[in-house]
Amino acid sequence: MAGIPVAIIMGSQSDWATMRHAAETLDLLEIPYDARIVSAHRTPDRLVSFAKGAKAAGFKIVIAGAGGAAHLPGMTAAMTPLPVFGVPVESKALSGQDSLLSIVQMPAGIPVGTLAIGRAGAVNAALLAAAVLALHDEALARRLDAWRARQSESVAERPAQEE
Amino acid sequence: MAGIPVAIIMGSQSDWATMRHAAETLDLLEIPYDARIVSAHRTPDRLVSFAKGAKAAGFKIVIAGAGGAAHLPGMTAAMTPLPVFGVPVESKALSGQDSLLSIVQMPAGIPVGTLAIGRAGAVNAALLAAAVLALHDEALARRLDAWRARQSESVAERPAQEE
Amino acid sequence: MAGIPVAIIMGSQSDWATMRHAAETLDLLEIPYDARIVSAHRTPDRLVSFAKGAKAAGFKIVIAGAGGAAHLPGMTAAMTPLPVFGVPVESKALSGQDSLLSIVQMPAGIPVGTLAIGRAGAVNAALLAAAVLALHDEALARRLDAWRARQSESVAERPAQEE
Amino acid sequence: MAGIPVAIIMGSQSDWATMRHAAETLDLLEIPYDARIVSAHRTPDRLVSFAKGAKAAGFKIVIAGAGGAAHLPGMTAAMTPLPVFGVPVESKALSGQDSLLSIVQMPAGIPVGTLAIGRAGAVNAALLAAAVLALHDEALARRLDAWRARQSESVAERPAQEE
Amino acid sequence: MAGIPVAIIMGSQSDWATMRHAAETLDLLEIPYDARIVSAHRTPDRLVSFAKGAKAAGFKIVIAGAGGAAHLPGMTAAMTPLPVFGVPVESKALSGQDSLLSIVQMPAGIPVGTLAIGRAGAVNAALLAAAVLALHDEALARRLDAWRARQSESVAERPAQEE
Amino acid sequence: MAGIPVAIIMGSQSDWATMRHAAETLDLLEIPYDARIVSAHRTPDRLVSFAKGAKAAGFKIVIAGAGGAAHLPGMTAAMTPLPVFGVPVESKALSGQDSLLSIVQMPAGIPVGTLAIGRAGAVNAALLAAAVLALHDEALARRLDAWRARQSESVAERPAQEE
Amino acid sequence: MAGIPVAIIMGSQSDWATMRHAAETLDLLEIPYDARIVSAHRTPDRLVSFAKGAKAAGFKIVIAGAGGAAHLPGMTAAMTPLPVFGVPVESKALSGQDSLLSIVQMPAGIPVGTLAIGRAGAVNAALLAAAVLALHDEALARRLDAWRARQSESVAERPAQEE
Amino acid sequence: MAGIPVAIIMGSQSDWATMRHAAETLDLLEIPYDARIVSAHRTPDRLVSFAKGAKAAGFKIVIAGAGGAAHLPGMTAAMTPLPVFGVPVESKALSGQDSLLSIVQMPAGIPVGTLAIGRAGAVNAALLAAAVLALHDEALARRLDAWRARQSESVAERPAQEE
Repeated sequence: MAGIPVAIIMGSQSDWATMRHAAETLDLLEIPYDARIVSAHRTPDRLVSFAKGAKAAGFKIVIAGAGGAAHLPGMTAAMTPLPVFGVPVESKALSGQDSLLSIVQMPAGIPVGTLAIGRAGAVNAALLAAAVLALHDEALARRLDAWRARQSESVAERPAQEE
Repeated sequence: MAGIPVAIIMGSQSDWATMRHAAETLDLLEIPYDARIVSAHRTPDRLVSFAKGAKAAGFKIVIAGAGGAAHLPGMTAAMTPLPVFGVPVESKALSGQDSLLSIVQMPAGIPVGTLAIGRAGAVNAALLAAAVLALHDEALARRLDAWRARQSESVAERPAQEE
Repeated sequence: MAGIPVAIIMGSQSDWATMRHAAETLDLLEIPYDARIVSAHRTPDRLVSFAKGAKAAGFKIVIAGAGGAAHLPGMTAAMTPLPVFGVPVESKALSGQDSLLSIVQMPAGIPVGTLAIGRAGAVNAALLAAAVLALHDEALARRLDAWRARQSESVAERPAQEE
Repeated sequence: MAGIPVAIIMGSQSDWATMRHAAETLDLLEIPYDARIVSAHRTPDRLVSFAKGAKAAGFKIVIAGAGGAAHLPGMTAAMTPLPVFGVPVESKALSGQDSLLSIVQMPAGIPVGTLAIGRAGAVNAALLAAAVLALHDEALARRLDAWRARQSESVAERPAQEE
Repeated sequence: MAGIPVAIIMGSQSDWATMRHAAETLDLLEIPYDARIVSAHRTPDRLVSFAKGAKAAGFKIVIAGAGGAAHLPGMTAAMTPLPVFGVPVESKALSGQDSLLSIVQMPAGIPVGTLAIGRAGAVNAALLAAAVLALHDEALARRLDAWRARQSESVAERPAQEE
Repeated sequence: MAGIPVAIIMGSQSDWATMRHAAETLDLLEIPYDARIVSAHRTPDRLVSFAKGAKAAGFKIVIAGAGGAAHLPGMTAAMTPLPVFGVPVESKALSGQDSLLSIVQMPAGIPVGTLAIGRAGAVNAALLAAAVLALHDEALARRLDAWRARQSESVAERPAQEE
Repeated sequence: MAGIPVAIIMGSQSDWATMRHAAETLDLLEIPYDARIVSAHRTPDRLVSFAKGAKAAGFKIVIAGAGGAAHLPGMTAAMTPLPVFGVPVESKALSGQDSLLSIVQMPAGIPVGTLAIGRAGAVNAALLAAAVLALHDEALARRLDAWRARQSESVAERPAQEE
Repeated sequence: MAGIPVAIIMGSQSDWATMRHAAETLDLLEIPYDARIVSAHRTPDRLVSFAKGAKAAGFKIVIAGAGGAAHLPGMTAAMTPLPVFGVPVESKALSGQDSLLSIVQMPAGIPVGTLAIGRAGAVNAALLAAAVLALHDEALARRLDAWRARQSESVAERPAQEE
């Protein structure tokens, strides 16, 4: 496929500590991505420009991470027909409960597929993107299957007793 | 400046049941307003157009009501230098807790002055707008003082015992 | 591809009141689907059989709705490489907060793209499935664009004043 | 009694820091147990195999600990007639509130007896298993009584004043 | 032992609307029970008397339902070595969240196996009691297996479409 | 007055880190007290004995601190006609939200006057006890007034700017 | 003592539906009271006047009920040395969770003894006031004991089975 | 303009760690302010005096920060016609959820424009005050525009990869 299939966007530099786990997971699965900072609140023009141009730019999926009153995933979804997956970044006071509700409780009409708060959500956004891309990419489907098989195999039978 | 000082915007027709209380309060205080539906998610272009043009249109204050993943107040604040007051509309499943957090937990840099969930918040958004406008409008200041005095006087000394 | 691209599964008959909104949205977009009851708890064999066979059966996307300790979406995701979108059904005592957390807080490794609690989430699961399928279906992409455009156009400029 | 009466299962190695308190409590009460890692999400086949075979393997009680979208206790309960006691492991962002709701809010038909979040819950799962086994094991009943008596006696009359 | 194996206790008459579902489930499984009102707060002597005498009275399991600051299950567990299963009754203002936390968050040392809020929890407390009793009652084990099989079979393949 | 007017009871030694602030406040106000560990769950006999004998022992007020499923204040109130003030001790996973609800949500008929979670609540339980005792102790009333006056005076006019 | 010992204050007429249960309970115990509407927000002068004058007016205890951002109990406590008991009135959107936290989470220095949300809290505020007054009123102590005894006796042994 | 336009008040010295971010933001925008400690609970007379005199003292806007049962913003708003913006200070046990609800859930009639919990809220209270003042201060409007433009420009295009 020509082009970079996945865009990872986030609201601020501080979100990278979470969103890099999405990037690393895509790396493992050999899926190209472009990581950008797009702040819904501080750079609304960049948001509009990115979201409206995402499909024409060749992206197939947008992964958007944000915290607090996390408007980035939903506003991106409002301006692109591409699937948008949202990652609630853990916030300081409310531990990401505000981020989660701000992302997942979208009104009927504009969906954001929301993942778990924090690192697990970032990893899983990448895996969900991979699952979508694998629908039409047999080689990726095999890599994803292999990754999942390795994951299953890596689970020890018994807990290591050392503390 | 001549013109309409307050814009009331809301995410959908269903929010009007809440936001009309803002309108009615402005009516009582003889403050002109313009009420519009601007959906951050379903009409993002209208949002950009409204927010970017609000100051030039002569508005001084924006009152924005929305529910669920309520992005309208914060996105408006991102695109206008005018003060924005947000009203969390009560949502079906989560009773407005999602609306409240989506509106109030804005990141440093883009403020939304947030009022209570539901009708009380709509009334109070209007009163807060009045308080701001009264800073430079003596006649309005007197009307607002009178309204507040009447409110105090209307509180009965003792509860009416009938059920 | 011949075959039915979307499976809608739900934990019980009572979830249909919510999940039918996913079905109706797919109908509008002319996307075939198969709706089944698969209870993770009461019919675990059916779950294993469905989930493991979903890809071979030709499905591309699974939409799973459940309430309370909602294990259906996550357990399905554990046994299929297909993208799984989860819909938290509103529960009696906790209004779907339990459903939401049980679906969205998946550990790293097994993603469920989670939508809003209740009807909005069901509609949006269908729209998200459509967005994924539209990546490789130009006709569907046009229907989805048209649907979104009609949605935008259907938003009135001003609230209707009648109560 | 022939066989090992208690199985302790947990979703990942990291849960052992919590679940070892169940193991240690069973040790104190001289109740044999088998501790295993069974991930509902990463090793669903192991889950099915374990849960379906638990009774035939001679277990009488299953203690299952998991965090986040904690599906292990409920899915085990769906596939074994044995009593299942669930321990919500404290999660990072939501402090185990997600784990608790995912375990305790099971639908009518498939019960999980749920204990407190974290260490206290792990200790108590072991004590509850002991109480069940003691119904038909007089020697264990005496050991449990003695343990409870010692616990009562160990409570000082007055708080030690040092900080 | 001959005698009644299960005691169902509840804090007030109003809890019966919930706890009768435990009674009806025990009836279906042909398990005798004794249902009593024992208020931890309004009849503390009755509580002490019941809890301390429960084992001698021949009970094997106590099912305790209560709402709000629900102290009945935990205080019973403090005074009997028998397994205690707690059912959080849905409270008016907080929907049973207070009941749930008051029952499940027991300190290490005194366990209460807690079920879901409301009717589902009452049914499941009975099923969990049955699972415990079935460990040493083959006939009951067969009845419970049959009940579970019928439950699985009763799940329709597809949702009925009528509204 | 003959006798010690205030009993401070707490569920475990670990609660002393919180409850010592009640003791220190009573010391400042020269109010004698007796501090004891009474675990509702681990020493129910001690609880019954203490609560039933508290009035005869000459106490006038009971301050009870506990965490998690905090049953001590409510169960004490069930067995004494004396006023009981409850202090929710901060719990590990849920930060005292469980403690607070377990103490404050008492059913009609048995009151517990509940204070804030943690240290502030412990200080305030002592101050509330002092306010009650001061109703019939002029000297104490003067000491309490003086304490409150000093508290008011100790509030600086402006914040100290150093960090 | 000559004079009315209990003041019941509430933030608005609508709170009377809750606070009348405090009044009725005081009636049953033959304790005189004065019920007034004092709005912290709409009648701050009345609040200051009432609170500062409450002791001189002969009151011994203040029961204060309020909802939402419930400032009445705490502000009253700030301006009187009398014991203040707070009743969180159930609020529309948040079911009294806002009321509860606004009343109970007072800072160290100014206590409010807080009761349960709603009717139970109103009844219990009256009972707690009675318990305080009974410390120096033997006749009231006997009436309160009798009330408590009747309450215990009124608890049926077994649940009435009719629905 | 003669006079100091903004008053920053806070409930205690410890709130300064949060509220200094409001002060620093006003400094950046060259807006004079006066920072004071006014405790609603410990210095109610100072509160009354400040709030009633705020307008006459020449202030135009009050920024009030408080934590826990945070009554300062609402009580100030009850006694001044000036716009009041509230900042919920993060509390120890409940992370500012109590502060937020105590500030934002004001009844209809007395508005407090509420900002986010903690530092972000303090910064934004200053920015909202600036937006209000800028309505009649062109120079300030230009400084605020410049500040916002610099903020937008400071957002990097891509995340810095170093950890």
